[in-house]
Amino acid sequence: MSASALLESLRSTVGAANVLTEGDLSAWEVDWRRRWRGRALAVVRPGDTAEVAAVVRACADARVAVVPQGGNTGLVGGGVPDDTGTQVVLTLQRMNRVRDIDEANLTLTADAGCVLQALQQAAGERGLLLPLSLAAEGSCTIGGNLATNAGGTQVLRWGNARELCLGLEVVTAAGEVWDGLSGLRKDNTGYDLRDLMIGSEGTLGIITAATLKLAPLPAATTTALAACADLAQCVALLKLARTRLGAGLTGFEAMGRFALDLVARHFPALPQPLPDAPWTVLLEQSDIEGEPQARGRFESLLGSALEAGLISDAVVAGSLAQSRALWHLRESIPLAQAEEGLNVKHDIALPVSAIPAYVASTDSLLRQRFPGVRLVNFGHLGDGNLHYNVQAPEGVDGARFLQAHEQTINTLVFDALRPYGGSFSAEHGIGALKRDELSLRKSPVALRMMRGIKSALDPLGILNPGRVL
Amino acid sequence: MSASALLESLRSTVGAANVLTEGDLSAWEVDWRRRWRGRALAVVRPGDTAEVAAVVRACADARVAVVPQGGNTGLVGGGVPDDTGTQVVLTLQRMNRVRDIDEANLTLTADAGCVLQALQQAAGERGLLLPLSLAAEGSCTIGGNLATNAGGTQVLRWGNARELCLGLEVVTAAGEVWDGLSGLRKDNTGYDLRDLMIGSEGTLGIITAATLKLAPLPAATTTALAACADLAQCVALLKLARTRLGAGLTGFEAMGRFALDLVARHFPALPQPLPDAPWTVLLEQSDIEGEPQARGRFESLLGSALEAGLISDAVVAGSLAQSRALWHLRESIPLAQAEEGLNVKHDIALPVSAIPAYVASTDSLLRQRFPGVRLVNFGHLGDGNLHYNVQAPEGVDGARFLQAHEQTINTLVFDALRPYGGSFSAEHGIGALKRDELSLRKSPVALRMMRGIKSALDPLGILNPGRVL
Repeated sequence: MSASALLESLRSTVGAANVLTEGDLSAWEVDWRRRWRGRALAVVRPGDTAEVAAVVRACADARVAVVPQGGNTGLVGGGVPDDTGTQVVLTLQRMNRVRDIDEANLTLTADAGCVLQALQQAAGERGLLLPLSLAAEGSCTIGGNLATNAGGTQVLRWGNARELCLGLEVVTAAGEVWDGLSGLRKDNTGYDLRDLMIGSEGTLGIITAATLKLAPLPAATTTALAACADLAQCVALLKLARTRLGAGLTGFEAMGRFALDLVARHFPALPQPLPDAPWTVLLEQSDIEGEPQARGRFESLLGSALEAGLISDAVVAGSLAQSRALWHLRESIPLAQAEEGLNVKHDIALPVSAIPAYVASTDSLLRQRFPGVRLVNFGHLGDGNLHYNVQAPEGVDGARFLQAHEQTINTLVFDALRPYGGSFSAEHGIGALKRDELSLRKSPVALRMMRGIKSALDPLGILNPGRVL
Repeated sequence: MSASALLESLRSTVGAANVLTEGDLSAWEVDWRRRWRGRALAVVRPGDTAEVAAVVRACADARVAVVPQGGNTGLVGGGVPDDTGTQVVLTLQRMNRVRDIDEANLTLTADAGCVLQALQQAAGERGLLLPLSLAAEGSCTIGGNLATNAGGTQVLRWGNARELCLGLEVVTAAGEVWDGLSGLRKDNTGYDLRDLMIGSEGTLGIITAATLKLAPLPAATTTALAACADLAQCVALLKLARTRLGAGLTGFEAMGRFALDLVARHFPALPQPLPDAPWTVLLEQSDIEGEPQARGRFESLLGSALEAGLISDAVVAGSLAQSRALWHLRESIPLAQAEEGLNVKHDIALPVSAIPAYVASTDSLLRQRFPGVRLVNFGHLGDGNLHYNVQAPEGVDGARFLQAHEQTINTLVFDALRPYGGSFSAEHGIGALKRDELSLRKSPVALRMMRGIKSALDPLGILNPGRVL
C-alpha cells in the first residue's frame, strides 16, 4: 500500500479532521525535553478503541510503523516519531472518558487518554484517592503512565503505576482488541499479559483503557523535615520510620546539601528550616486519624531518632500550608538545577541498604576524574531511587561540560551500579535514549527472552520500533 | 537420546542418589488432593541452580518433558507428571537455603525450595514479617507459591505472591540461567519478565530463587466478628472498615450461615459467638500501636456500623488467644465440609461490588436446578474471592452427587460469572484441572498472545506440557 493510500484509509477510519499531515505538528513530533525532533507521516487521533484497532490494521497492512503517544511528557524519547517521515503517530488524546467508578470495589476504569490529574479529581469527588502522583500529572495520560510504569512521589506506600493497575484494554499489533479490563484483585487464569504490557512502552500493544485501584482519602497528610549527618543516618531513619509509622509513611525524600544550596541560591525567598544539614529528609505521613495524632506520632518518632543519634534536628509542619512549603522546597530542586545550568541527569535505583556505599564511592570517583565537579543528589530514598545528577564545576559552562563528558560520566555512574545490583533506569524507562544501555547492560538471557516476546507479539515490528529493544 | 542415556546423563549431573526411578515415588507422582496419580520417568533432585540448568539441558536434548515441583501442595494438578512414564519430575526440595536477609532494604532472598513457613520464621527472627500466609505454609515452597501466584489470608493488605516479589532467578527452557534477582523497588529496564514467570506454573521457566519484600512486624494483631443480615451489608461494612482502619485492616473474611452450621455440627466444642447471624464477618487489624488502641479502633468502627444498621451484633477479641479462636472458626470450615461429604468446590473472584447480586442469582439458579442443594459459601471477601462450594442435599451421597452433576454445576457457576467480569480461578491457578475451562473462557486474543509467548520461550514445549495452555 502506498503512503497516500494509507492516509486515505486512515481518513476514512477516523475522519479527515483527525489525520494531521500539515501545519505545525511539533506538539506531537517534538518531545518534552526537546531532545528529539521527529517528522511524522501523519498524526492520527482515533476517538475510540475500535478506531485504534482499525488504524493499527491499516498501518500493519501498509507495513508502516505506529508510535503511540499519550501526553508526550516522557523523558527518554519513547513517544515521538523518528525523523524519516514514515511513522504514524497515534495519539490517544481524544480518548479521555472516565468509563466507570466502582466505589464499593474501589476501582476506576478510564480511557487511556485521560489526563492523570483529571482522574485524581474524579476519584477525589467521590472521597477516594488515586494514589499515583508525579510532576507531569497535569498533562501526562494514564495510558502513558502505564505504558512506562511511572513512579512518582507515592511509590513508597502505593507502588509504581504497575501496582495500581488491575486490568487493561489493549490493541495488539495485529489490530485486535484484547479486553483485559478487570476489577479483580485475584485472577490466576493464564499468563500475566497485563504486567507484560505495563512498562513495554508501546512496543507490544497499545493500551486503550485501564482499571485502577483506588483507596479511601486519608483523613490528614502531615510533613516533617529531619537533618541527618550522612546517608547512612538517612537509611537508619527510614527503617525506624517504617516501623513506627507503618503504612502511614507515604513519603521519604532525601536531599543533599548542594541540592538545597542551589535552591537557596536561585530561590532565596523559600524558607530553609535546616540550613546546615548535610542531608535533609522530608517525611510525609498520611493518616486515617486527624492531624493532631499524625503530628504526635511524628514528634515521638523524631524524638526517638534524636535520642538514637540518627538526626540532629527536625521540624514538623504545623499546618497544611507548612506541609506544602516543605514539599515546595523538594520540588524546587529540578528548577534550581536548571537555573544553575545543564547537568548530566541520572535516574538510578539501588537496594536502600547499598545507597550510602554507592554514593560515597561514586562521588569519590567522579571528584577524582573531574576536580571541582558538583553532585546534585536527591530523590525518593524510600524507594531506593536517586536522581544522581552531575553538575559542571563552578564557573564551567554546563553545555560544554556535557558535550565533553556526558558519555564518560554515564558509563562511570552506571558501571558503579553493577556490584550493588542497581538499575540505570528506575522510573523513566528506556525509550530511544537508553536503548543502547539496555543492550549493553541487561543480561543476554533476559534480552533473548525479550526479543522472543517482541517477535511473538509484533512479528511485523510495527509497534514503536527502535524503542526499548 | 534414549531414556536410559538421559538417565545416565542426569545421574552424572546430580549424582545417582538424586535420580529416583524405583520404589515408592508417590510423594512426587500423586498430587495433594489425590486426584492425579502420574508415573515419572524419574524424579530428579538438583542441589543448586547450575544443576537445574544442566538437568533442563539434558531433557531438552532428549526432548523429554520436565515437570517442576515444589512442595506438591497445588490443588489443580499442575505439579505431578502425567501417567505416560515419560516425564521427568524436577523437585526443588533440596534447594532450601536462605541466601540473604537485607534488613535495611527489607528484603529476603531464598532458594525456590524453601518452605514458606521456614521463610516466615527466618524473617520473624529479625523482627520482620514475610506477609504471605496460606493453609499449606508448613509444606508449600516459595518457588511453588510464586509459580502459582499464591493468595491466602493477607492479600487484602499485602497483595498476592506476585506483589511481594521483587526479583527472580529462573532456568529457561533452553537450560540457561536468568539472574533476575533484585532488591529494587523501581526498575524500568525492559519487559517485565518477572511477572510473566510468576503465575505461569512452570510452563515458561523454572524459578530457582526469589527476592521478596518484608515489612516490620506489627505491634499487635486483633480480631473481631460481626453479624450481617446479608452480603450487601458485608460489602458496606468492608467499605467502612477500609476507611476507618486504612492499611491496618489486614483481614476481612465472610462466612455464610450454612458454612458455620457445618462447623457447629462437626466441631461442637468450638464457640460460636454469633450463632444466629446470616453472615458472619471476621475482621483482622494489624497495628503499629498496641492492642488497646487496636481494640479501641475496632469498637469505634463496630459502634458506627451498628448505628448505621450494617451489623446487628459484634464481638472484639479480648486477647491473642481469643483472636486465634475466631480464626480457628474460619479455618475449620474446610474440615467441616469434608466431614459432611464431598462437594463441588469453586475458587471464584468478582468485583466486591458484584458479590451480593452474583450470589443471590447463582444461589437461586442452583436451588431451582437441584432442589435441596446446600451452599457452603465463605472466603476472602476483602479480595472479592469466594470459595463458593455446592454440597449435595441433606442425605444424598456426596460422591454420587458429584459424579452426576459436577460438570453441570461448574458450567452454571462459571457462566454466571461472565456478566460481572468474574474469574473461575482466583488463587488456585489452571494446572491440568482447569485447562479446558481456560481455552473455553479466556478471550481468543489473550489465548493467542499466551500461545505465542509459550512458543517463543519454550519452542520445544518441554516445560510442564499439558498445563495452563
